[in-house]
Amino acid sequence: MSGTPSLDRISLNQITTEHWSLEEAVEGCLRHDVPWISVWRHKIHEIGLSKSRKLIQDAGLNVSSICRGGMFPAPTPEERRERIEDNKRAIEEAAELGTDVLVLVCGPAPDKDIDSARKWVEEGIEELIPFAREHGIKLGIEPLHPMYAADRSVISTLGQANTISERLQSDYVGVVVDVFHVWWDPDLYREIERARGSILGFHVSDWVVPLPDIFKARGMMGDGVIELRRMRQAVEAAGYHGPIEVEIINDAIWNQPGDETLKQMKERYVEHV
Amino acid sequence: MSGTPSLDRISLNQITTEHWSLEEAVEGCLRHDVPWISVWRHKIHEIGLSKSRKLIQDAGLNVSSICRGGMFPAPTPEERRERIEDNKRAIEEAAELGTDVLVLVCGPAPDKDIDSARKWVEEGIEELIPFAREHGIKLGIEPLHPMYAADRSVISTLGQANTISERLQSDYVGVVVDVFHVWWDPDLYREIERARGSILGFHVSDWVVPLPDIFKARGMMGDGVIELRRMRQAVEAAGYHGPIEVEIINDAIWNQPGDETLKQMKERYVEHV
Repeated sequence: MSGTPSLDRISLNQITTEHWSLEEAVEGCLRHDVPWISVWRHKIHEIGLSKSRKLIQDAGLNVSSICRGGMFPAPTPEERRERIEDNKRAIEEAAELGTDVLVLVCGPAPDKDIDSARKWVEEGIEELIPFAREHGIKLGIEPLHPMYAADRSVISTLGQANTISERLQSDYVGVVVDVFHVWWDPDLYREIERARGSILGFHVSDWVVPLPDIFKARGMMGDGVIELRRMRQAVEAAGYHGPIEVEIINDAIWNQPGDETLKQMKERYVEHV
Repeated sequence: MSGTPSLDRISLNQITTEHWSLEEAVEGCLRHDVPWISVWRHKIHEIGLSKSRKLIQDAGLNVSSICRGGMFPAPTPEERRERIEDNKRAIEEAAELGTDVLVLVCGPAPDKDIDSARKWVEEGIEELIPFAREHGIKLGIEPLHPMYAADRSVISTLGQANTISERLQSDYVGVVVDVFHVWWDPDLYREIERARGSILGFHVSDWVVPLPDIFKARGMMGDGVIELRRMRQAVEAAGYHGPIEVEIINDAIWNQPGDETLKQMKERYVEHV
């Protein structure tokens, strides 16, 4: 465990430069020697899958993950079936782009019944396993901060994600640790250790005070209260040595030039992660 | 466990009518047959403690709790000492107003070291026990939603509150369950049962989608996704049959006439709690 992680591991999660197209993001990574990129599906769909693949291959970039699958709960069996089909398309896109991780944002309950929604999440992931295995894609359950429990994910803690991952017992299911979502958790370090062998991704940003917005809430590393280095060392101690995605959803950062963002995220990564 | 809780248990948490003085809130409770009130210290300080006591006594109102003590973590021992002294004043005020519960909002970390802050919270509560016992005041640890972990409370789950309460083993320490803060927790019902015998308060509001604000975030019961009746029945099954505080921090509700708020909160209480 070094004091500073290698820049060979830094990845631009594409939402951090939301105002850039995929082409601009790929070119930005080349200009700034960022070797990894995490691609969002809405950016793929803007230009199509084959053009997306060609852009990334020609640039020689590595794809750390595709964001995002999930969104399993829905009020009717037919709608839940449609969600599964959409996840299969996401798995195909992930395979086509040459990554091995699909990040799952599991979805909110369609009504007040959070227990049923959690059951549907687990059933949905289980149903996807054979298709994921065929395509060589691992499903990364990303717990989201409890402030998103009503509208984005009923999976709110790393403990929940670990429990699902353990129950499903598959090499194609694991967890994604995003510091913004889990930093507050009193069981965090125990759950990171429990996730040993199944950590599929590590995402960094920061929690600034006051939070600028509920959704567009994340700060640049070093601007907030999260013990970034401690968490990075903990996931390494639990065996994760893969790419480290910088994933920042923030209007002020979106509105600055993307080159400024990439320069800053590399500096802060070296200094704080 | 009845389908509807008795209106004998409803309490106006005074923050729900933040634009009312204590005198206006007391008069409002009388007009609307609300038998309990939870008093905030900044409202007491506006008119003084003895006038506050007289208002409440003359009205024949019961005081369900005083909000709030806590805020234990601070960078220096001297500042932590001052916080303890302020909590002692809060205990004296609670005793003077004839309640037996002081609600603790435990406070954020002064820096990135959340573990130390959590330790200071527990040490602070422990230090207050003899003073609380002398005054007949119980200290209610209220876990706050993890979205407030950086600026209001490093105690984010009922599990944490229960652990502190169990460690301290005192009749003068317990927990307060506020639906807004804990509804998302996958361990919620297990932790409510674990809190048997030490639940000192139950607060209701709702989680609306989208949330109107980060701090002024709470909705009127029935407007959101929280399984209010299920939670009320769970705290009753765990032995709590005391007052039920309506605690809503929300600009739109603050800006409507207080009489409208009290009328609405009684209707929603009957319908949804």
